[in-house]
Amino acid sequence: MISIVLVEPEGPANIGMVARTMKNFGFSRLVLVNPNITEESYSYAVHAADVLEDALVLGSFDEALELFDLAVGTTGKPGKSYIPERAPLMPWELAQTLRGYSGRIGLFFGRESIGLKNEELERLDFTVTIPTSEAYPVMNLSQAVAVILYELSKGRPGPRAHSLELATRREKEELVKAWGNLLGVLNYPKDAERREVFVRVFRRFVGRAVLYGREVHTLIGPIRKAALKLEECWDAERREV
Amino acid sequence: MISIVLVEPEGPANIGMVARTMKNFGFSRLVLVNPNITEESYSYAVHAADVLEDALVLGSFDEALELFDLAVGTTGKPGKSYIPERAPLMPWELAQTLRGYSGRIGLFFGRESIGLKNEELERLDFTVTIPTSEAYPVMNLSQAVAVILYELSKGRPGPRAHSLELATRREKEELVKAWGNLLGVLNYPKDAERREVFVRVFRRFVGRAVLYGREVHTLIGPIRKAALKLEECWDAERREV
Repeated sequence: MISIVLVEPEGPANIGMVARTMKNFGFSRLVLVNPNITEESYSYAVHAADVLEDALVLGSFDEALELFDLAVGTTGKPGKSYIPERAPLMPWELAQTLRGYSGRIGLFFGRESIGLKNEELERLDFTVTIPTSEAYPVMNLSQAVAVILYELSKGRPGPRAHSLELATRREKEELVKAWGNLLGVLNYPKDAERREVFVRVFRRFVGRAVLYGREVHTLIGPIRKAALKLEECWDAERREV
Repeated sequence: MISIVLVEPEGPANIGMVARTMKNFGFSRLVLVNPNITEESYSYAVHAADVLEDALVLGSFDEALELFDLAVGTTGKPGKSYIPERAPLMPWELAQTLRGYSGRIGLFFGRESIGLKNEELERLDFTVTIPTSEAYPVMNLSQAVAVILYELSKGRPGPRAHSLELATRREKEELVKAWGNLLGVLNYPKDAERREVFVRVFRRFVGRAVLYGREVHTLIGPIRKAALKLEECWDAERREV
């Protein structure tokens, strides 16, 4: 069970945008430490006002910390690699680490201006950072939340992500086979080795395209039909002669 | 080279936040189609005003489309799983697909209110979607950009040397046209509207596979040959009768 903890968020709009992002990715438990929350927050939450209404508002970092078995900090300043215990995880490593963990998890995000203070970071279990450009490493708070929650929700089987079945290896093989057969019927290219090359190009084409099963069926139909009709027609010609 | 294209963005703040996110993840090429850009945009860009200043402002979707060899749309409404050609990629699949691709890539994001229109989506090579909760699937524009750019920048390697030329938009069009012609010659599927759907599935297939120019020629040959031979053979049959 993962909660998002905003420590002294300064921008009312950001609080609302965080609520919206949470609902986008299927998270609902929001903890706010001394938040600057206003009507503007609700307007930025759009259809996630419920997340704001259900938020737990606390007066101190310590109270928030007490709620969790695992408290993870986020930092936009991971540069201090000379302190090994401060070396942060990348978001995808966080996702791996939390997989299957059933305790109460708090993801702590700091103030827009200065982030989490050192004395706060030290009391957390570990930190996570989003790899950004050196030219401008500091992300907007709600965008950082979006990226982290996206990464955490990725592994979660969602109904929409799976509404279409990816083509199986066998379906893709059938498609490649149909193409190879068509080349054979056409006797094109004439040289059998070159035909093999043509089939390999087609196989890569199929491999890269990340096809769905239904798409394979749509593609295979005309290829088979073309080969069949050519054979029929040429058979008829031969009979004529 | 990846550009972010915002098609008729309605919120000045969002434009600024997109610019900031781009700079966070090391992207600098922004294209704006009929944007509602104001002073507020600059204030939300914070230290990414340069991205806004360098943005290319265009008057139509078509002008933007012309700029790219590969045009990718984003959609928050991937639910139409019964339309196979609309099947979108997930962001991590997009990252895989674009890896090593050195052509001009445009990532198109639609209006906050209605996204990209169907007639716009149809002209793009393929679409990508961020898997979100059914309870609230619609993300804020700038957050969607953040998630996509995060995913793309994750595995960014140095520039890769390419001895092979990527297929141009025109070469890809020729391939799709050849396929459409073959379906026409075969009269398969019989229903012209369904043939159109089959062609659109093929277009996505081509779009997603990130083909090289030489590969297009290898693929187009047998398709043209099949159509030609079928016509020859059927003409001969007709002469016999």
